[in-house]
Amino acid sequence: MEENDVVETIEQAEAELVEESEIEESQDELSKANERIAELEAKLSDAENRILRNQADFENYKRRVRLDQESATTYRAQSLVNDLLPALDNFERALQVEAKDEHSKSILQGMDMVYRGIVEALKKEGVEAIESVGVQFDPHFHQAVMQVEEADAESNIVLEEFQKGYKLKDRVLRPAMVKVNQ
Amino acid sequence: MEENDVVETIEQAEAELVEESEIEESQDELSKANERIAELEAKLSDAENRILRNQADFENYKRRVRLDQESATTYRAQSLVNDLLPALDNFERALQVEAKDEHSKSILQGMDMVYRGIVEALKKEGVEAIESVGVQFDPHFHQAVMQVEEADAESNIVLEEFQKGYKLKDRVLRPAMVKVNQ
Repeated sequence: MEENDVVETIEQAEAELVEESEIEESQDELSKANERIAELEAKLSDAENRILRNQADFENYKRRVRLDQESATTYRAQSLVNDLLPALDNFERALQVEAKDEHSKSILQGMDMVYRGIVEALKKEGVEAIESVGVQFDPHFHQAVMQVEEADAESNIVLEEFQKGYKLKDRVLRPAMVKVNQ
Repeated sequence: MEENDVVETIEQAEAELVEESEIEESQDELSKANERIAELEAKLSDAENRILRNQADFENYKRRVRLDQESATTYRAQSLVNDLLPALDNFERALQVEAKDEHSKSILQGMDMVYRGIVEALKKEGVEAIESVGVQFDPHFHQAVMQVEEADAESNIVLEEFQKGYKLKDRVLRPAMVKVNQ
């Protein structure tokens, strides 16, 4: 080998080393970049799942709120109606007083109109008296406070009502207190 | 140059070419990877912003719902009360009938108890009559249907009430209809 050849060979070897380390470096960078890509993809996938979950939560919440609001609107009068029922009971009892003359008869007639006005206002809000006398006893609507045995009346029928029951739309505010035939 | 040397040189040149193209390839891959990283980072940042925006929207919605529900609860009786007011007016008029004897007096006393029971139930729900006679005229609460000039009465004072006004909590359901002194 000539001297020149030796120098050339050394230079080539050096160049190869440099190139090899360049390749190594860039492969190192590439593997780091790929790691970063994997990390970002995982984070993005998490974030996207979270967005979907949040949207589902939001939709569920909205639906629940809508149902709550509907229910609140439907039964909004319940509290006031419950408080009015005792006065309504008293009103009915007061109207059952017997009129002894024309004057008291006219007073009672006026009061009966007032009573019917109140019942009408309650009805508009969905309040209705529960049917009782003459219908089949139904534990959802009637509370039996007395039981009798009358052979000439139908079995399980309501014979008498002691206190009116009321419902607000489909909700029973209080059952009617009744006498039932066995 | 010997033949061997020539072969060696060609092999080296080929190897260098291969290495160079490897470097180019890996740099190409790296730049693609970096592009992908930039793209993913942008998407992740978008997704994170969206999560924050969604959370803020959700919180706003919850707050609005809470306020709506509070308001709905506060004024829940409004509809029924509005429907009851005409019956209440009639009730008051009916109670103003003069009792001619003990019998009618006792009927009216019973009815007065019923009336007070209704007023009590309404009060529990936040309904109250608006003060009028003897207080300063206030257009928020009073509707002047008559104006007079009485020198011996205070200026701008309510002298007489023709129809009761009512409010539900802080909300005027209807103003009192009154006579005012100029």
